[in-house]
Amino acid sequence: MLSLRNEEGITAALAALADLLGPRLATGQSLREQHGHTTTWLENQIPDAVAFAQSTAEVQEIVRICAAHRVPVIPFGTGTSLEGHVNAPMGGVSVDVSGMDKVLEIRPGDMDVTVQPGVTREALNTELRATGLFFPVDPGANASLGGMAATRASGTTAVRYGTMRDRVLALEAVLPSGEVVRSATRARKSSAGYDLTGLMVGSEGTLGIITELTLRLAPQPEAISGAVASFPDIHAACLTAQEVIQLALPVARMEFLDEAAVGYVNRSHDLGLPGAPLLLLEFHGSPGSLAEQSEAFAELARDNGATGVSWSTDPDERGRLWRARHAFYLSALALHPGRVGFSTDVCVPVSHLADCVTAARAKLDELGLPGANIGHVGDGNFHTLVFVDPADPQMRGLAESYVAWLNDLAIAHDGTCTGEHGIGQGKMKYLEKERGPGALEMMRAVKRGIDPLNIMNPGKIF
Amino acid sequence: MLSLRNEEGITAALAALADLLGPRLATGQSLREQHGHTTTWLENQIPDAVAFAQSTAEVQEIVRICAAHRVPVIPFGTGTSLEGHVNAPMGGVSVDVSGMDKVLEIRPGDMDVTVQPGVTREALNTELRATGLFFPVDPGANASLGGMAATRASGTTAVRYGTMRDRVLALEAVLPSGEVVRSATRARKSSAGYDLTGLMVGSEGTLGIITELTLRLAPQPEAISGAVASFPDIHAACLTAQEVIQLALPVARMEFLDEAAVGYVNRSHDLGLPGAPLLLLEFHGSPGSLAEQSEAFAELARDNGATGVSWSTDPDERGRLWRARHAFYLSALALHPGRVGFSTDVCVPVSHLADCVTAARAKLDELGLPGANIGHVGDGNFHTLVFVDPADPQMRGLAESYVAWLNDLAIAHDGTCTGEHGIGQGKMKYLEKERGPGALEMMRAVKRGIDPLNIMNPGKIF
Repeated sequence: MLSLRNEEGITAALAALADLLGPRLATGQSLREQHGHTTTWLENQIPDAVAFAQSTAEVQEIVRICAAHRVPVIPFGTGTSLEGHVNAPMGGVSVDVSGMDKVLEIRPGDMDVTVQPGVTREALNTELRATGLFFPVDPGANASLGGMAATRASGTTAVRYGTMRDRVLALEAVLPSGEVVRSATRARKSSAGYDLTGLMVGSEGTLGIITELTLRLAPQPEAISGAVASFPDIHAACLTAQEVIQLALPVARMEFLDEAAVGYVNRSHDLGLPGAPLLLLEFHGSPGSLAEQSEAFAELARDNGATGVSWSTDPDERGRLWRARHAFYLSALALHPGRVGFSTDVCVPVSHLADCVTAARAKLDELGLPGANIGHVGDGNFHTLVFVDPADPQMRGLAESYVAWLNDLAIAHDGTCTGEHGIGQGKMKYLEKERGPGALEMMRAVKRGIDPLNIMNPGKIF
Repeated sequence: MLSLRNEEGITAALAALADLLGPRLATGQSLREQHGHTTTWLENQIPDAVAFAQSTAEVQEIVRICAAHRVPVIPFGTGTSLEGHVNAPMGGVSVDVSGMDKVLEIRPGDMDVTVQPGVTREALNTELRATGLFFPVDPGANASLGGMAATRASGTTAVRYGTMRDRVLALEAVLPSGEVVRSATRARKSSAGYDLTGLMVGSEGTLGIITELTLRLAPQPEAISGAVASFPDIHAACLTAQEVIQLALPVARMEFLDEAAVGYVNRSHDLGLPGAPLLLLEFHGSPGSLAEQSEAFAELARDNGATGVSWSTDPDERGRLWRARHAFYLSALALHPGRVGFSTDVCVPVSHLADCVTAARAKLDELGLPGANIGHVGDGNFHTLVFVDPADPQMRGLAESYVAWLNDLAIAHDGTCTGEHGIGQGKMKYLEKERGPGALEMMRAVKRGIDPLNIMNPGKIF
């Protein structure tokens, strides 16, 4: 990789950036390291400097300087990416926008909000509390909204409220040319030319740096209920999830945990759930509709052999279960000291879900790998988490072969290797398999058109 | 415009296409005329030939021949475009895909369907009748699904079921290079690279020809109710619509008609509605939820001074009102013999709607133009229809100045000049005003990257 570094340009750009930013250009080793591989098992490829930007105009200046010297620009929000998006394989400048964290305007009449990219989803929801509105996309991590848009994030609520693709109404970005572009107006729909918002959402920082977002909000639900059911096998749980979707029950969340995953949350959170595949649901609505929906779910679940079916509007009981679910990744990892987590992120048509999750569980067992499956099953999206001893090359090899096998399985089922994490560095080799050379070439044509110098987050996606 | 024609290339391409297609390459004057301006007031710019394609492979061959001779390719579905999308300003070949009209696969388990681009929305819904599912996007006209995707169409149901942007899960397209590309898999969500589906939806045939679509379906509603309310003024009607959205009432349709529009439907369909601004709603749900929703609407409407508020699940009564609404354009035109309709399509943030519609009505009256306003007001989208005597240049000038004034008004309110019709030829001059030069240049960069020879529907959008 070192041969790809433009040493001369980097030296010149860093000098110009130091003049521009003063102490907000950081070159210390530990800070640079923190802006590298972050939460992934990928090698840390640290940037040459971290530029802490405070305004769109400043981002513009930074990009112009980097463009003039053909130096890579790597946007950075909170670093919760799981696929190496913030690594700097060719060096360059990490542009940290976490200081651009203002909620600029809340418009209750239009149910939208304009924010800077460093605002996190939890910070936004805290600000919205008194408005009767909330921002519903919930990827688990307290990610920055700019980063969530850049990776087309979603999570547990996508089944009801959509993904970032559905929730970003418009955005402002600094393009590789240094030009500032607004992708759309605040109209709820438009047929005015190419969908630049949709193009930027999910572009993983390879087309520009998002400097402002206008997001669609949702009304805070009048009431919330939770439901839980244990199933005799994975197939029965997934089939129930599929039927919930077909009946158009407006579930707000519908999470699956396989037996191993239930075991981990039982141990970490002392839940005492039956050791069997589980569905965990949340409903948002009027008190009357909650009862109707919860009962309809209970009936479907029992018809598929579920036991322990219960539902409740008690916030304590519900909170305990969802906290355990959200803490799954970290608490399961804590039960495997010294190991790293390999995450997967396949998404398949819902009618293929039961077969794919059943096969995934069997494959883990066949390979003797410690791991668990959890899923946002209303969307057909599930994650296997494998706990790997980094000092054991054989185990690492097995885990890598599992990941490859699973991605191939999803692609064979007309699914995707990534439902919500993005391609980054980790899934580059699966993208072409999934989409074919023509689609990849079309993406490359877009990239070349907008970033002819290839300075925006190079080495990602393609 | 004639100087832009590549006569030599056109002659050579037509010869090669005649060899390929035989009698399915039509060069007769009247057929070519029918493939020109269609439903618009724009000048008819007829193509040099119409190629009736029957398969993706054939579209591919047609595009390759045209690319080799640098001849424009203009995709054609049913010709219901309102903005001159199918005109041939530089000549070239209209590629008519109306014969590619097969529903290829219905998958009830995944609630999706794969169709050829010439399938119309009514034909699709006829095929779906027995499945318990339907395709909900309803632009009024019985358009082809390929054309609806190409213009990012929506209509009366977008407030509940979204636009084509939300309903196209994946598509196949022939690019200007002749390459066939699939934009996505059938997974309900994906973060795998750029959103090529979103890029093609709304690209108006300027990036490729859509040859197949996979669409998201919705469950047929258990029950349907309709509601109607007359308001003392435009402001009260629009405010009620805004409150419906803020309360998150899941209306399936919510249409506004101003007093003039009500007058037209009264005359054409003998409805006897009060001569006042009207809201016409439809609810989809369980019988219990319909009553709850309809009553909630009635309360909001009465609080805003509405009279004649009623709701009903009677299909005859509901059908009569909605048929009148859907026939509005044609029946209002029939009341103005010899005139042509100028349509507008602005969309603004819902909190700006009341002011914008009120101003639009006042401006029509001030200019003395015969016209009416109707709107998909849940989305902030409304259309003024102006009835213009084509032989009266002064009236035409007034109508054009009205259109310009309205588009500027919407843009000043952070809205768009087109909510659902597209830019085509008719709104090119407003696109840059709306999005700014940077966004337009970004669109052009995408266009150049994918269609460097500018053969795909040239002279549209840009």
